[in-house]
Amino acid sequence: MPNLQSESLNAKVDREAGRHGQKSHGPGELQILRQIRRRAGAFYSATLPVGIGDDCALLRPRAGEDLAITTDLSVAGRHFRVEWHPADAVGHRTLARGLSDLAAMGARPVAAFLSLGLPRELTRDASGRGAAARRGARLGSWLDGFLDGFLRLARENKTPLAGGDLAESPIAAADIVLIGAVPRGQALLRSGAQRGDAVYVTGTLGGAAAGFARLAECRGANRRAVHIPARLSAELASHLYPRPRLAQGQWLVRRRLATAAIDISDGLSTDLTHICEESGVAAEIDEVALPIRPGASLDQALHGGEDYELLFTARASTRLPRVIAGVPITRVGRILAARKGLARVTLLTAQGARPLEARGWRHFA
Amino acid sequence: MPNLQSESLNAKVDREAGRHGQKSHGPGELQILRQIRRRAGAFYSATLPVGIGDDCALLRPRAGEDLAITTDLSVAGRHFRVEWHPADAVGHRTLARGLSDLAAMGARPVAAFLSLGLPRELTRDASGRGAAARRGARLGSWLDGFLDGFLRLARENKTPLAGGDLAESPIAAADIVLIGAVPRGQALLRSGAQRGDAVYVTGTLGGAAAGFARLAECRGANRRAVHIPARLSAELASHLYPRPRLAQGQWLVRRRLATAAIDISDGLSTDLTHICEESGVAAEIDEVALPIRPGASLDQALHGGEDYELLFTARASTRLPRVIAGVPITRVGRILAARKGLARVTLLTAQGARPLEARGWRHFA
Repeated sequence: MPNLQSESLNAKVDREAGRHGQKSHGPGELQILRQIRRRAGAFYSATLPVGIGDDCALLRPRAGEDLAITTDLSVAGRHFRVEWHPADAVGHRTLARGLSDLAAMGARPVAAFLSLGLPRELTRDASGRGAAARRGARLGSWLDGFLDGFLRLARENKTPLAGGDLAESPIAAADIVLIGAVPRGQALLRSGAQRGDAVYVTGTLGGAAAGFARLAECRGANRRAVHIPARLSAELASHLYPRPRLAQGQWLVRRRLATAAIDISDGLSTDLTHICEESGVAAEIDEVALPIRPGASLDQALHGGEDYELLFTARASTRLPRVIAGVPITRVGRILAARKGLARVTLLTAQGARPLEARGWRHFA
Repeated sequence: MPNLQSESLNAKVDREAGRHGQKSHGPGELQILRQIRRRAGAFYSATLPVGIGDDCALLRPRAGEDLAITTDLSVAGRHFRVEWHPADAVGHRTLARGLSDLAAMGARPVAAFLSLGLPRELTRDASGRGAAARRGARLGSWLDGFLDGFLRLARENKTPLAGGDLAESPIAAADIVLIGAVPRGQALLRSGAQRGDAVYVTGTLGGAAAGFARLAECRGANRRAVHIPARLSAELASHLYPRPRLAQGQWLVRRRLATAAIDISDGLSTDLTHICEESGVAAEIDEVALPIRPGASLDQALHGGEDYELLFTARASTRLPRVIAGVPITRVGRILAARKGLARVTLLTAQGARPLEARGWRHFA
């Protein structure tokens, strides 16, 4: 059995077992937590350095490493919609948000903790009776789909689920905590960009916003649809199953080539503004250079959030490959000195230069 | 300004600032997050070892220490009631749950992360207009009271608030993440109890359950009451403002005197069962020895959860003081070998021995 769980998981499993024995109807916390532990345990004991199931999980940091820690709260109706998003996409996106923060620091994932608040109906199988759960099989529920997506991405990124908490809640909410490790003093920060540096992005931009717009159309037309039509799956993938750029962030740390980095969670315009503000500089972007995802608009590429690509800077003299760990990188602009009257970010177009306002995509705003 | 925030706090402050400038009506995320950062920053930069405001908080672990990590999700209607509990008590209890898990491992708090989901009305001041927040004063809201209680306990326990997340939510929910440090290999575990060990508890038992029962009476009688009558405050304090036993846990680690430990969050009967199960032993408790809180019943002392006292074991030959760091400790029983047919936990009373079923208190069940 997994021995690295937070108190909450253990305590609840045991408490429920102590109180209800085998009498529980439907999937109680006991069944749900057993399910999560069983599914998570298959891959995490080999990855977590040392730990004991107890009031807390225990991590033994490696010498010479800093730890990066991030938390992201996703709430139904604000960050996802139970009636729009496939359950496995919600699980995937919950973890991807946290992993992308680690990627932006160049950190390697060490452990994830997941706190879930769920309405009872999302823990029940399709028949509503929880029979599958009682037999120890998959729950067959929304939660089961959520775990499919969450644990698949966790496994792909060698991220053990080391603990968490579970509570009944009138609405679905998931808080993800990610702990990563990075060589001491080598984390990629937002604050290191300097005048003359080049600005790069990984992958393509605007795909997540375009995919979301397509999903909204498709769900708006058919509210009861459960499956995404196959012809749409490629269009929607950037939105539903974003790929955190962990390998690319770690590559940049190993080579010490980046001067600053951030992940594009709020949109290029907003996230580049973050770098400029933290570094005390300005920037300009060449419209023609932007790697816009086919099917996405310029606006979606500039302001669409949740692409989870990396945005980073490097000295202009630094030679970077065209592809890092399988993902293309594109030089899209340069860092300028900040000056009074100069916009933080300027967009250079065929028609001339214009200030680029930070107006990243807002969830369901 | 604080420089150790998670991405979420920084990104949202900046995003909201970029989008809305000074035009925001009422306390938007920007104002709320500025408020939290300003209030948290006063004490945390001196305590956190090293960190940079960025996509993640950064921790630099000390050599020779393990990290203990715990998460606890509190949801309105299940773990607290907005209409029953004073806001500062909800903030206090949210943090106390996590700190108590650290105490049970003997860990010293290093950092806290707080994810809050809040209905909009809980972020507004009493006038509903958020004017105070716009002037940069206290929010005058439920959230402000929550932060009063949270940050007061954090300060008392030298626990920096290093980051977190905030989202609008139809119901109030708070996920607390605590990271603590403990000398390598010295964490107090549940699994070390051995036959012949003595069983101890800190403080008194049953006070939280008795206080909750009193609060329920008092709130049931007057649903609109906001203030707790002064004559009740001592009775309710164990429930509303529990004290995590951090100093006691760390004392036990320093002296290496305890063989196993847990915090009493689910009730003595349930938590002692945890120790017995994890250690593969049984236990017996002397009813007459129990330090029952005046005003509490035997049942509340045995099964009432949320006392957040420590329950620990030590060799029978170990000499322990009567008081550790200002809190009395009481020997309440002993560890036995597990035998078929023997209950995990037995209660010895004047009428003889009876099995003590694990039936800790369930929140609002």
